[in-house]
Amino acid sequence: MRYAVIMAGGSGKRLWPLSRQGQPKQLLPLFEGRSLLQIAFDRASRTVPADHIYVCTGASYADAVAAQLPELSPGNLLGEPVGRDSLNAAAWPAAVLARRDPDAVMALLTADHLIEEPETFADRLGEAFRLAESDADALVTFGVVPTEPHTGYGYLERGVWIPGFDDAAEVVAFTEKPDHATAEAYLATGRYWWNSGMFVWRAATLLRQLARLLPATHAAVLDLADHPERLGDIYPGLVKISLDYGVMEPVSRGQGDGHVVAVGLPVRWVDVGSFATLAAVLSHDAAGNACQGPVIVQDGRDNLVVSTGDAVTAVLGVDGLSVIRTPAVTLVAPLARSQEIKDLADAVATRFGDEAA
Amino acid sequence: MRYAVIMAGGSGKRLWPLSRQGQPKQLLPLFEGRSLLQIAFDRASRTVPADHIYVCTGASYADAVAAQLPELSPGNLLGEPVGRDSLNAAAWPAAVLARRDPDAVMALLTADHLIEEPETFADRLGEAFRLAESDADALVTFGVVPTEPHTGYGYLERGVWIPGFDDAAEVVAFTEKPDHATAEAYLATGRYWWNSGMFVWRAATLLRQLARLLPATHAAVLDLADHPERLGDIYPGLVKISLDYGVMEPVSRGQGDGHVVAVGLPVRWVDVGSFATLAAVLSHDAAGNACQGPVIVQDGRDNLVVSTGDAVTAVLGVDGLSVIRTPAVTLVAPLARSQEIKDLADAVATRFGDEAA
Repeated sequence: MRYAVIMAGGSGKRLWPLSRQGQPKQLLPLFEGRSLLQIAFDRASRTVPADHIYVCTGASYADAVAAQLPELSPGNLLGEPVGRDSLNAAAWPAAVLARRDPDAVMALLTADHLIEEPETFADRLGEAFRLAESDADALVTFGVVPTEPHTGYGYLERGVWIPGFDDAAEVVAFTEKPDHATAEAYLATGRYWWNSGMFVWRAATLLRQLARLLPATHAAVLDLADHPERLGDIYPGLVKISLDYGVMEPVSRGQGDGHVVAVGLPVRWVDVGSFATLAAVLSHDAAGNACQGPVIVQDGRDNLVVSTGDAVTAVLGVDGLSVIRTPAVTLVAPLARSQEIKDLADAVATRFGDEAA
Repeated sequence: MRYAVIMAGGSGKRLWPLSRQGQPKQLLPLFEGRSLLQIAFDRASRTVPADHIYVCTGASYADAVAAQLPELSPGNLLGEPVGRDSLNAAAWPAAVLARRDPDAVMALLTADHLIEEPETFADRLGEAFRLAESDADALVTFGVVPTEPHTGYGYLERGVWIPGFDDAAEVVAFTEKPDHATAEAYLATGRYWWNSGMFVWRAATLLRQLARLLPATHAAVLDLADHPERLGDIYPGLVKISLDYGVMEPVSRGQGDGHVVAVGLPVRWVDVGSFATLAAVLSHDAAGNACQGPVIVQDGRDNLVVSTGDAVTAVLGVDGLSVIRTPAVTLVAPLARSQEIKDLADAVATRFGDEAA
């Protein structure tokens, strides 16, 4: 049986002040009124029945997640009392699913990205399920076919193709985010895909890797699946570690009890991680301005102007700025400096208190 | 007996959204918590006792004016039901004062400006009173000694000096706002002062000019002084005209029943008419940023950033902008385009309704 787990635990501080405590990036209704989480749920629904879709998120976001996803079964909402990185956001759901269905095959999906071709994604997700169902040793990941030497993503190095499957290959190495020259070299070989951070495997297969690589974590998540009432005791004690470091890289090096396989994902895949990328994916007026809410831009180009609530934001004679108004904060900064917003948010919290953060 | 009337009827649309319906420019507490009106009242108080100071303002601002000026006698607050330009904002108070005190000598003062040397102003105001007291035919105005060929002010052309008074001269002509070349020519002659829009005269002297030049207005304001309960009937029927057009220019051409005299005013006199001038007069940080309210500016220069209320305004990496946040509106525009703000405010009102204007 096929399941999907959407990992929606991030905070998205580079989208401050749109994202803030209690309203992380993936819950912002920025895309024709829908959030990245809702879009991710819709995407999963093409392949997996709604009552087989789980969401793993911060416990403080649970009410907001439930409100945004009326189709989500209440028992399928897993709220982490504290963040413990991606390995635990995969291991806990795997233990829960394995207890519900020993044959569960699970997709671990992100809610941070927009994928422009949902039909292609559904097709590739189906292929990944087929692979995981046919191979109890396979940890399947998705390799996004790169369109540029991006330095913000990790890369997968492909080995031999898997016979009988469309565009699927062994993964021989995971690499860190490269510098530009290295990224160009990767693209030149034709053997590298972007590491999507999305996966498909049998729940039992992941748990088997954990039993070998991280036995304490393995024991803890099984305990948690049997005793959900002990969540607040057990979860904070889990070792904070990413899925790549804890499982994918060791298994690709032969240290686990299986092998890593990647399915190619030829889609436009956008990490909505900053105002610059948000401005790029939202619809624009003729002057290149992406506007949301009660906004007016006169004689300005290529701005991102977002006004939440009823207050009007009026912009005259500026180019390439993010102008963000929320009930608690107004932000004005060049889109080209979107990477510095997190530090600015921290400075505001230090000076004016957490209410502004 | 000396009186002062502070004209505080403007709206200050170029300071939108700080200024707005019900809160005009002269009431904004921008100067160490005090408003231009409060500063003007303090300035007048150096020369005239508080119970001889009147304020003529829009009736809709009356409550706010009373709240800002606890020293103002309630009977000295004249609220215009509609704006009828400066002539009527002088003529009505003149009629009221003449009825209270036939020998009243009145100063008509503005609340739109900052004057950097209040002692000098008090000295010159005393000289103007002395002149008006000694000459029942004199309409005394103040000529600000120009520091640059400003094209935003009208100019006075001086004739002969008045013996027995310090730096006072006949005025032979009033001129419109000049172009730059004309303004330079004016300064080169040494015979021109800026037209300050402030005046001193006996109330009876002004009324005598009106009787000759604008008899209907003369009759109406006397009627109004006798029947304050008829304000709502009479005031809207007054002809809308400026003091310069209606009285000062005709009298300077010999068409009235007196003559125009100017007292030199050697002060730094700043029309707080736009965000550019506001930015210039407010205190700055080391990077030239003028900030008010909960504001943070990182790596930016020469910005005006004002946040009213509790919301934080955070600005990164921009120069020379006005960033204004109020409960209803956020404005972002270059300070160099401050003259276009009024049109922007009109566009916002058209698109989003009057609540935003």
